[in-house]
Amino acid sequence: MNTEQIVIIGSGPAGFTAALYAARSQLNPLLFEGTMPGGQLMGTSYIENWPGTTSILGPKLMTNMREHAQHFGGRIMRETIDHVDFSTHPFTLKASKLGIIVSQAVIVATGATPKRIGCPGESDYWGRGVSTCAVCDGAFYKDKKVLIIGGGDSAMEEASFMTRFTSDITVIHILPQFTASPLMQERVLNNHSIKVIYESTVSKIIGDGNHVTSATIVHQKTGACQPLPCDAIFIAIGLQPNTELFKGKIELDSRGYIVKKKNTETSVHGVFVAGDVADARYRQAITSAGTGCMAALDAEHFLKNLKPAHQ
Amino acid sequence: MNTEQIVIIGSGPAGFTAALYAARSQLNPLLFEGTMPGGQLMGTSYIENWPGTTSILGPKLMTNMREHAQHFGGRIMRETIDHVDFSTHPFTLKASKLGIIVSQAVIVATGATPKRIGCPGESDYWGRGVSTCAVCDGAFYKDKKVLIIGGGDSAMEEASFMTRFTSDITVIHILPQFTASPLMQERVLNNHSIKVIYESTVSKIIGDGNHVTSATIVHQKTGACQPLPCDAIFIAIGLQPNTELFKGKIELDSRGYIVKKKNTETSVHGVFVAGDVADARYRQAITSAGTGCMAALDAEHFLKNLKPAHQ
Repeated sequence: MNTEQIVIIGSGPAGFTAALYAARSQLNPLLFEGTMPGGQLMGTSYIENWPGTTSILGPKLMTNMREHAQHFGGRIMRETIDHVDFSTHPFTLKASKLGIIVSQAVIVATGATPKRIGCPGESDYWGRGVSTCAVCDGAFYKDKKVLIIGGGDSAMEEASFMTRFTSDITVIHILPQFTASPLMQERVLNNHSIKVIYESTVSKIIGDGNHVTSATIVHQKTGACQPLPCDAIFIAIGLQPNTELFKGKIELDSRGYIVKKKNTETSVHGVFVAGDVADARYRQAITSAGTGCMAALDAEHFLKNLKPAHQ
Repeated sequence: MNTEQIVIIGSGPAGFTAALYAARSQLNPLLFEGTMPGGQLMGTSYIENWPGTTSILGPKLMTNMREHAQHFGGRIMRETIDHVDFSTHPFTLKASKLGIIVSQAVIVATGATPKRIGCPGESDYWGRGVSTCAVCDGAFYKDKKVLIIGGGDSAMEEASFMTRFTSDITVIHILPQFTASPLMQERVLNNHSIKVIYESTVSKIIGDGNHVTSATIVHQKTGACQPLPCDAIFIAIGLQPNTELFKGKIELDSRGYIVKKKNTETSVHGVFVAGDVADARYRQAITSAGTGCMAALDAEHFLKNLKPAHQ
């Protein structure tokens, strides 16, 4: 079996930038795209904060990054890593189709996934009115009643996006005010198609057996419940780091994010991390790409200093 | 006098990205470009490691970033900050033409500058054969004898670039092998126009009173000196952080880099840092842009939590 120099798990801005830098460092990286090729930006429309590019479709930016990494020799596999063993070096990984892979270094860039509410009815109507991606599913709800759950940038973006399709949008937010950046908030608050219900959550999602028909909204202070008829519910209440694969293998913090020990290195020497899977604070495409670059440079440094006996 | 919410000092990828994010957060940022608008990338030709863009001229990328920040309302001043007072809040800055500016938050993104050798003759022939920028000055030396001093990525880039103009290139490096990334090294080592002298330094630069004519090369182990005729000497021996303005104002490390205390915040609460001025390790356009974004988000968070009495 060939031993890889470096395996990258994940295909958002962090993974592809790591692959680009590792490829340009002639490390012949092998990247596994996972279950959501391209990461979270694949579910966005235009993004306006990739520096130097005033406006670009999220999926287009990711396609560009993918091709850029490939252009310099990055190998990209359309499959998932199902198991990792970091207890001995070189590390062992199991890919869904390719099987066992041995690698000197690993970069984890598995990103984060939108959280679910966890209320009754949510799972029953998942994909049948309940969604975490207005860009993906919004067009199905032309002139329909739509709820957006959340108060951060993602919720604002979902709400603003939905105004293309309908003028009956209600944002439900748990706090007395939004946490989104001012510009994003303003777009929502100034839009007459969007109503806001503060200090409230969804306690139940109700449907006709086939599709969502309403939600129960609970006020956080009074406890008062009201039914709110709706055709779609877009959930944007934060992210969960994708670290299921690494539990017990590398150190995670209390919220499940991977802990960086020194620069981008994890608790395992030779395993590095980049992007949202280790970042609960910034979570931007540009910050993820930056840490992807850092992880590749740190991994290159690690590989250069490996004793020849291990190579 | 108006109090600014946020002043950004510096105009490389870090400064412009900070301005973009601060502008999109409606903080109405004021950016001072300083003595080298656009930063180090203005002295490069094509760069191939900006993720998603296989090849772009460095100055073009910087123009794009500048316009992007302006597009969202970033105000950009073509002048320098000559003095800062961080001892009281809000902070006071003195601009070369605009005069005194008061600001609630400051982002320092002043970058780093190529180091000089410090040998006799270097200052005498600066700009008359001695340069730190082959892209800027290389075309003057068609079919001439050229020395490149250094062994890192920058030195490799300078040497490779000069092969467009001449086939008489010698790289002088202090160590027994290059420290550049493998791909960059290979391009130099495989190029028949480029000779390499290892374990050697330049101890003196000699000219005819008008222009460089030769350099004295000293072997580090034997101490042997040899004169080497040359028409140009490009120096690429590392960077010096641009922190002269901040000495005694914010904490610097032993090499003069700004110390980050918490996320991107410096030793002064409300003063943040981004890019190469705080980064001796990665120093890439993409990592600088990433930290520029982080500094803007940290500054936004700081401003949001300022007591109203201070606003």
